[in-house]
Amino acid sequence: MIRLFIANDLAAGAQVPLDAGQSRYLAAVMRLAVGDELLLFNGRDGEWRAAVASVGKRAVNLGVATLVRPQACGPDLELIVALVKRARLETIVEKAAELGAARVRLVITERTNADHARVERLQAIATEAAEQTGRLDVPEIVEPVKLERLIADWPAGRRLLFCDEAGDALPVLPALAGQPNGPWSVLIGPEGGFSPKERQVLRDLPFAVPATLGPRILRADTAAISALTLWQAALGDWRS
Amino acid sequence: MIRLFIANDLAAGAQVPLDAGQSRYLAAVMRLAVGDELLLFNGRDGEWRAAVASVGKRAVNLGVATLVRPQACGPDLELIVALVKRARLETIVEKAAELGAARVRLVITERTNADHARVERLQAIATEAAEQTGRLDVPEIVEPVKLERLIADWPAGRRLLFCDEAGDALPVLPALAGQPNGPWSVLIGPEGGFSPKERQVLRDLPFAVPATLGPRILRADTAAISALTLWQAALGDWRS
Repeated sequence: MIRLFIANDLAAGAQVPLDAGQSRYLAAVMRLAVGDELLLFNGRDGEWRAAVASVGKRAVNLGVATLVRPQACGPDLELIVALVKRARLETIVEKAAELGAARVRLVITERTNADHARVERLQAIATEAAEQTGRLDVPEIVEPVKLERLIADWPAGRRLLFCDEAGDALPVLPALAGQPNGPWSVLIGPEGGFSPKERQVLRDLPFAVPATLGPRILRADTAAISALTLWQAALGDWRS
Repeated sequence: MIRLFIANDLAAGAQVPLDAGQSRYLAAVMRLAVGDELLLFNGRDGEWRAAVASVGKRAVNLGVATLVRPQACGPDLELIVALVKRARLETIVEKAAELGAARVRLVITERTNADHARVERLQAIATEAAEQTGRLDVPEIVEPVKLERLIADWPAGRRLLFCDEAGDALPVLPALAGQPNGPWSVLIGPEGGFSPKERQVLRDLPFAVPATLGPRILRADTAAISALTLWQAALGDWRS
């Protein structure tokens, strides 16, 4: 069944007029007709069963019927990833949504050779992946900032799994053993790695846990998926 | 430094004439000149430092100098993956090479809607990924077979991590806890999942360990990467 993320409030009996893009998708691409059912979520009110109430050329209206799943919070897991080439960044965002990240923060490091990203497009990719993976919210994509700014603004209580391809850190599972739950970020560097200075700064942070991702060199997208997977298995919602 | 997988034997002082494709790559794309150094491996003799000995229009010759790393075997980890759409299958092969799989076996299931794959192209992708990830061998890509044939021919002593998106299996880490090392395969189904009959057959196999990959629906490429990562962390070469 089609799942659609919308901005509107959801409640039994609510009427939801879709915007032009979503109307076109349902009417022209998926060819839904009056009475056809789908699932809706907005990140706040849970997942609802709804049905097409009317189909116009540019305006589909839905009627909300019953609550299927109440809203539930996933873990406060954030992926911080250095800007990499567009195709790999898009893969990373899709996978972060599937793997339950609450947020993807883009970061500019010394060896990053890009300073902007198409955040709106990445947000659309995150939304589509969230619809398909069955989660009840959409990860937020945050505009890129420089690594030093990110560290300067670090919120109290949030821990950082720093995936460090060089050096002698423990593998992720032993590095996370005994660590508390709560807000965590996973940091993945650019394809060229962090500079020696950046590595030193990161390793000295009191909230950082350095860890390695095995004996081979991983591309940034592989590293992001592997690190999110291991975090979810060790401290997140893949435990039970 | 460039790493190249070649078929030739490698030993100190050996002369290696490259084929037309690799010659063109080194001369025209990477613009190597006489004396430039690179690394060679063949899956048997370890990793060797070599230098360009001569550059012709279609024939580059290398001279092998010194052994950098002796040949080492990774774990006998095999990925068995149902045929999925080409782009995702190519991603899966690239990632399996990065994550240390020894072999990728393609399988046809009831809900697979393809019956062939471009194995030669997949093998080229695996080779390039092996060159970049720093491993000393290249994963073999095995022609697709039907699931029932694969099960009928199952080799003694090999265990199967069966990633089962439905049902009540344990997550991968607790499912693998206490399991022995040795030859393992990881099985990832098609995007539509296994049929109920296939699931029953798989769960009844004495060598199979069913496991789930978290509470969300994963695409086949994400599932493959996550499952290989968790196996490597639990039983493979990501442990130390």
